[in-house]
Amino acid sequence: MPSDASMPARPGLTQGLRRAVELRGGGTALIDGAKRFTWREVAERVARLSAVLRGLGLPDGGRVVLLSLNTHRSFEAFFGVIHAGGVIVPLNHRLADGELAAQVADSAPDMVILGDEFDRFAGLFREATPLKAVIHAGDGPCSPGMLPYEDELAAAAPAEDAGRSGDDLACLFYTSGTTSAAKGVMLSHANLCANTANVIGELDLGEDAVHLHHGPLFHIAPAARLFSVTHVGGCHVMLPRFTPASVIAEIERARISHATFVPTMFRALADEPSLRSADLSCLRVVSYGAAPMPEALMVEVMDALPHTRFVQSYGMTELAPVVTMLGWRDHLPEARARGLLRSAGRTVLFAEVRVVDAQDNPLPAGQAGEICARGPNVMLGYWNRPELSAEVLRGGWMHTGDIGYFDEAGYLFVVDRLKDMIITGGENVWSQEVENVLAMHPAVSQCAVLGVPHPHWGEAVHAEVTLRDSTAASERELIDHCRERLAHYKCPRTLQIREQPMPMSGASKILKHALRKEWELANAPAEG
Amino acid sequence: MPSDASMPARPGLTQGLRRAVELRGGGTALIDGAKRFTWREVAERVARLSAVLRGLGLPDGGRVVLLSLNTHRSFEAFFGVIHAGGVIVPLNHRLADGELAAQVADSAPDMVILGDEFDRFAGLFREATPLKAVIHAGDGPCSPGMLPYEDELAAAAPAEDAGRSGDDLACLFYTSGTTSAAKGVMLSHANLCANTANVIGELDLGEDAVHLHHGPLFHIAPAARLFSVTHVGGCHVMLPRFTPASVIAEIERARISHATFVPTMFRALADEPSLRSADLSCLRVVSYGAAPMPEALMVEVMDALPHTRFVQSYGMTELAPVVTMLGWRDHLPEARARGLLRSAGRTVLFAEVRVVDAQDNPLPAGQAGEICARGPNVMLGYWNRPELSAEVLRGGWMHTGDIGYFDEAGYLFVVDRLKDMIITGGENVWSQEVENVLAMHPAVSQCAVLGVPHPHWGEAVHAEVTLRDSTAASERELIDHCRERLAHYKCPRTLQIREQPMPMSGASKILKHALRKEWELANAPAEG
Repeated sequence: MPSDASMPARPGLTQGLRRAVELRGGGTALIDGAKRFTWREVAERVARLSAVLRGLGLPDGGRVVLLSLNTHRSFEAFFGVIHAGGVIVPLNHRLADGELAAQVADSAPDMVILGDEFDRFAGLFREATPLKAVIHAGDGPCSPGMLPYEDELAAAAPAEDAGRSGDDLACLFYTSGTTSAAKGVMLSHANLCANTANVIGELDLGEDAVHLHHGPLFHIAPAARLFSVTHVGGCHVMLPRFTPASVIAEIERARISHATFVPTMFRALADEPSLRSADLSCLRVVSYGAAPMPEALMVEVMDALPHTRFVQSYGMTELAPVVTMLGWRDHLPEARARGLLRSAGRTVLFAEVRVVDAQDNPLPAGQAGEICARGPNVMLGYWNRPELSAEVLRGGWMHTGDIGYFDEAGYLFVVDRLKDMIITGGENVWSQEVENVLAMHPAVSQCAVLGVPHPHWGEAVHAEVTLRDSTAASERELIDHCRERLAHYKCPRTLQIREQPMPMSGASKILKHALRKEWELANAPAEG
Repeated sequence: MPSDASMPARPGLTQGLRRAVELRGGGTALIDGAKRFTWREVAERVARLSAVLRGLGLPDGGRVVLLSLNTHRSFEAFFGVIHAGGVIVPLNHRLADGELAAQVADSAPDMVILGDEFDRFAGLFREATPLKAVIHAGDGPCSPGMLPYEDELAAAAPAEDAGRSGDDLACLFYTSGTTSAAKGVMLSHANLCANTANVIGELDLGEDAVHLHHGPLFHIAPAARLFSVTHVGGCHVMLPRFTPASVIAEIERARISHATFVPTMFRALADEPSLRSADLSCLRVVSYGAAPMPEALMVEVMDALPHTRFVQSYGMTELAPVVTMLGWRDHLPEARARGLLRSAGRTVLFAEVRVVDAQDNPLPAGQAGEICARGPNVMLGYWNRPELSAEVLRGGWMHTGDIGYFDEAGYLFVVDRLKDMIITGGENVWSQEVENVLAMHPAVSQCAVLGVPHPHWGEAVHAEVTLRDSTAASERELIDHCRERLAHYKCPRTLQIREQPMPMSGASKILKHALRKEWELANAPAEG
């Protein structure tokens, strides 16, 4: 609800939309294949969708699930739901039916918006929770029992903004965390506005930005860009999904200035022949993050894109999401020589990061501990999980579960996930350090290092590796490669060269828990 | 007080200080003549001052008045008071004793910090309100009954941050408003952090910024820079006051990258011969505002500083202070040709501006009306003035009293300040305040005060007066009457005792526009 008239207005996401219209009302806001919309058209469609949702009975704070590839209607759904006073809940279409049904039951949405290809989920979701409506937001035919998006919009009169802002809930993002059950991360208007304030400087995001959205919008990093690019009045280009060839073609076609990738996408782009033949000089700023970036790959991509500035972001869904950034200057040769490419960068404008020991005591520079963060970007908590929320937010700090340290110049080095730390013979081994060394070997395509049970050492270092096409390396050779570069206790005791691909998450992260399960199955004692 | 541990932390001003230490702890933070301090030293001194203030009994939310020229201790006072959980109240040393005493009585501070030259105010302030302490923050001798700043700091152990943030009051700035009494504008941590988020992009403020502080810190525009430059980890250079020669010399000496001026300062700089002989290539960004800028002067200054980018800000104390900015690109020849130098620019990132008619209905582009603003930068209200606060903040919008319109591209054009306001030498003078003083003189029958063009000050204060009978008072005597009761800059520079009656409206109001016409006719350059 609108805040008390005597108090200052809180930061709100729809204010960004109004600003974009004020700055660039007649300018291009949204490109989806052959379709183009101006900011005035987008604002009109958002206000109509908002009216449709209210007309269907969406209450203030009511949830609306979105299941769709990236289209212009995904963009409209985010802003339309929020404009109507609702909470957008984008779900991951790669999940199993049971996982999706559990998230629908947990978030208890009033209605659901389904993109083309996803009509079949209507029944599953109706079983999980009572729904007031299911909207088909696609170009294809609308299944029986669903409302056709365009017809509904055409029949509606634009609504007034519901006026939510500040601590009002705006989005629920489900993350499969360290535990098996996914948790709904509650992000407010203020959280996402703080993230915008925190990132636009380093990203050089302004009204001339043309941002490619190929990353799935059920992940916070791509989704947060919907808000930050809107706030500066830039232009959004929607691509249904990431494929290296389509991304490169779209950058060239739409003159993309800004895009964001995860390391595995960099790998795929570097291996795509058109990367070197296409004219990608328009690409001003590329950001990356979400997983450790092998330094060799980073250098390879920078060499292939000499016109582009690179910026690294570090954070997590619970932080809306960015808390540190490694700016483009820290990617230049001089900074590289200082080893800064291994750093996650420095704290953003409105956030605080500290490193603590197991008793939550702050540690000085140089000492590794759990990375904690606080600030206006920190989530309201986990949906329906007050105890877990209180636990991770204890003392007013979000406990990330990542291990890292600061250097004297305020650069954060993330050494590992807390759960990915291997303790072998009383020594701590950061799996990322070992992975970085393995990734330097020219034959290695992907690698993952984990701790496996060992009768004598507690845990032993184990590596799973996939090789580049037709490049040969033996297990022995790869272990020796590590021994030349790492302390003996850090080197893999066992190493498996895989034929099948690595198990990957929706965010293109290697699923170590799946690798661990594979290992356990393969190494289970034979039953009698 | 620290916020509820289960809620996200609010934006806070001392977080900016901690960030500066993290980014540039060993780097130069503060330069004051021959003195230099690193960020670690500044943070240490701030925490010691905070301990001194708490030790003297400063309660949470207690006010501390500051009366000083710009020194490194002024900077420390702002942050020290806020760090201690207090509210800094910087007062204008150019005010008459009675005006200062009234502001001290209104704000009821617990303690006072006086710079060199201002010890004599201790008695006046103690009469106005009970004080727990008066601190002498200067290099000169400390008067009896006052506490020596450096001795107190040396004896104190650094305190913990009191942890105020968000809507907690941080500063009180007194502005002479439309009524005779000055009002204390209450600005919160969130207000001033929002301003930082709103301006740093256009100003290109980063950790390499070296900012000159020559403007008096009792004005919001210079004071807000204390916070924004700190938040990005830049460097502050303090100059006691503005003189054209000292400013130019300091820009060259300290390699200043950023400074801000009002139009009369531009005039003085343009007239200073050293402007053209000094090497000012370090000066990257100059911002200006607070009064209409003559286009010819703007072009003259831009020509004299070819390496410098110019940015205009528009706002007011109640908006902490910026709501629109005219970026440096809009100062380039092509934009100039479109007339953009006459615009106040476009709405900043986190704020909304609209133009309304007399019934508060929003007006479309091209139509002039009262400029209103809302957003996280809008003040909490006026100190001790709930009715006036509710009036100017009605409907959730701050009513600026300025008249303007938007063009189709979102550029705001301010066509008239509230018609009674005079801007002389960058200072606002409200004619009604001067009229009230003139009207106190027993000989005065009617009076009207208006701003008339002045080659040096922009506008000069001019008074038209009719007397009760022809014998009563001379022009000199009436000006002296004002000087005893008002700051020098508020007093009429010229005063006309009229024989003929004032031009009056049907509603018995003096027609100032008719008086202005009369003045223009009488002062027109001789033709022929």
